Amino acid sequence: MNALELAEELVKRKEIARGRKKLILLVLDGLGDIRHPSNDYSTPLEDADTPNLDALASRSALGRIIPVDYGITPGSGPAHLGLFGYDPREVQIGRGVLEAVGIGMQLRRGDLALRANACTVERGNVVVDRRAGRPETEVSAKRIEYLQEKVGRIEDVEVIMKPGKSHRFAIVLRGPGLAEGVSDTDPHEDNNPLREAVAQTEGAQKAARIVNALQREALEALAGEGPVNGILLRGASALPDIAGLGERFGLRTAAIATYPMYRGLASLVGMDLLDTGPTVAEEFQTCLDRWDDYDYFFVHVKGTDQAGEDGDHEEKVSVIEQVDQSLPMLLGASPEALAITGDHSTPCPMALHSWHPVPLLMHSPRCGADRRPRFTEDECNFGGLGVFRSMFLMPLLLANAGLLDKYGA
Amino acid sequence: MNALELAEELVKRKEIARGRKKLILLVLDGLGDIRHPSNDYSTPLEDADTPNLDALASRSALGRIIPVDYGITPGSGPAHLGLFGYDPREVQIGRGVLEAVGIGMQLRRGDLALRANACTVERGNVVVDRRAGRPETEVSAKRIEYLQEKVGRIEDVEVIMKPGKSHRFAIVLRGPGLAEGVSDTDPHEDNNPLREAVAQTEGAQKAARIVNALQREALEALAGEGPVNGILLRGASALPDIAGLGERFGLRTAAIATYPMYRGLASLVGMDLLDTGPTVAEEFQTCLDRWDDYDYFFVHVKGTDQAGEDGDHEEKVSVIEQVDQSLPMLLGASPEALAITGDHSTPCPMALHSWHPVPLLMHSPRCGADRRPRFTEDECNFGGLGVFRSMFLMPLLLANAGLLDKYGA
Repeated sequence: MNALELAEELVKRKEIARGRKKLILLVLDGLGDIRHPSNDYSTPLEDADTPNLDALASRSALGRIIPVDYGITPGSGPAHLGLFGYDPREVQIGRGVLEAVGIGMQLRRGDLALRANACTVERGNVVVDRRAGRPETEVSAKRIEYLQEKVGRIEDVEVIMKPGKSHRFAIVLRGPGLAEGVSDTDPHEDNNPLREAVAQTEGAQKAARIVNALQREALEALAGEGPVNGILLRGASALPDIAGLGERFGLRTAAIATYPMYRGLASLVGMDLLDTGPTVAEEFQTCLDRWDDYDYFFVHVKGTDQAGEDGDHEEKVSVIEQVDQSLPMLLGASPEALAITGDHSTPCPMALHSWHPVPLLMHSPRCGADRRPRFTEDECNFGGLGVFRSMFLMPLLLANAGLLDKYGA
Repeated sequence: MNALELAEELVKRKEIARGRKKLILLVLDGLGDIRHPSNDYSTPLEDADTPNLDALASRSALGRIIPVDYGITPGSGPAHLGLFGYDPREVQIGRGVLEAVGIGMQLRRGDLALRANACTVERGNVVVDRRAGRPETEVSAKRIEYLQEKVGRIEDVEVIMKPGKSHRFAIVLRGPGLAEGVSDTDPHEDNNPLREAVAQTEGAQKAARIVNALQREALEALAGEGPVNGILLRGASALPDIAGLGERFGLRTAAIATYPMYRGLASLVGMDLLDTGPTVAEEFQTCLDRWDDYDYFFVHVKGTDQAGEDGDHEEKVSVIEQVDQSLPMLLGASPEALAITGDHSTPCPMALHSWHPVPLLMHSPRCGADRRPRFTEDECNFGGLGVFRSMFLMPLLLANAGLLDKYGA
């Protein structure tokens, strides 16, 4: 048994039931950065003016977390699964599921989700442009809405479509007897015919039949001039077979996030999704407003990752400073345990997600204090939490909240 | 799946095929040392004058690696397997194989390798001295060469012998149907008769028959006055069943090493062995000369380990300084990722291999910079790479070279 399995057994459910101990996981997406010649060897956390984080750091324990494993750069899905206490090397989120939750679709157990492209076909079923010339989102969305009107049900299966950006959209199939294990109709290269979806397992035969019927009906419905006169389907997948976070640890869990992707990921582990405003202060206010209703709050700040992806050091500094300015709101509520970290690093010099260990701050009455003067990558290297895989943050958070019993006598 | 298995899936083979990104693993054998009263609490890395390493350290990421596991002192085999991205707790190199490659014999798949002693027998088959009085290497070698002339083949199996130091030599059996699982003829104690080799598995019966025939024929061929009038055989083993390093990651791999043992280890994971001269500068020059032919260079410096084994602090300092002086040669070639480390520690105060974590420096355009002023054991403790098992250096090296795709979306 690893720490997570032990924690599931040792968690003090009665203590949680009293509802007085609150846990906050504050995620600054893509927080970690690297010193680099292009930033004069100084990271956004080092350059930001963060009096509140600095004061908190000196009374907290610091460390760094590895999202997936050494040298492995995670997407948002695996990175958040780790933070939520799942092993992202074992729990895989299918591409269809990620696409669907990423644009805000709600999934239920038994659903099958697919990624889909609007595409251009000729001669019946030859895909000449897998992305239909990358149409404007509105143009593509109108065609998908038209398709949804035409194809709402196949056999006893409900077909639910939602447009994404440009040529991208997602489809949820909802009905009895659907299972994973269906190959793509996407030929994966232009100027090839659409493929027949094939059941890769015995149980997936109905799903393959539905996917092929959907593919066929869509071609008929959209037939005519391009660019959007066909669709292609891929990544058919069901919800991962995992217990919810709240279920595992007896917590009432809530997510406060503005972007659909992160709301979707939180919903995959059973969190309630709270309505909130777009600013950091509004997100924090939502946490306070719902303080009595939940035991665990996942609060997600997107701006740090966006800035990192844009290679915008100054903007990343600015988002960090916004968090710092609003931090007293959360501290004022006196959570029993507060972890501040990122899901992965998005160094501005790389303008990409990366594998670099992410700074972590843990504050609780039991955290100890490394007495480091700031919350930066470098100071976190000196912290007493060490460097560890992010999936173990969850038991550490519970322990800091005093919510884990002793193991053995 | 751990980081290594993930990396095998995520490696950007097309990018590597372009051949512009070069990886260097520079191993200073036995590099790590310990502060100790006998060295006035200062390690060779601390005492060495290393302006080039110091400058590089300030622009690099630092950490420490654990060769096998906590408290485990590795031999050269497991230590290098770890650096090459194999789990040395799982992949075992048989003693016969290690002895054979250690004296420069080339092994093929299907070969069976044995360690052998020249020994002294009396009364037909009683071993009275397992090491034949530790003869001069030349004396023993002559007898082995004589034996090789007499016994070159048994059934359809070729018998290849090569003398090592003093009483030691190695034998490679090459022919169809040979398998591991043959017990030793070595009685392991003086004044005991040679043992019959026994097949421990069904598949090893032919191998056992050949080993017994070889043992018998050797006694006949060498019969007469001692000290070398017999041989004993042990550690029969085949190549480990592992995929080559280049095969796993799509790299063209080369080894630059002067000692047979390390050339042999590199050959076990499929590296090409490059001819080189005995000095550090000559080894580095070989790397530059073959720059376009390979993607991955393993460069091995033996002197640090030799000095450590001799307990010679000053000599270890001197070898480190030689590496430092030649380092600009490698840096001038602008490898995409350069790791400098050791396979294990060989602290001079112990004059032995040890388990102590080994200093690691990682340099690449994506490494970040811990801004530590030197490359020493102590400075590496403060580095952002943390302390981790050396088998994960390989994925980290690939990540630093920008050669791994993102995991999940």
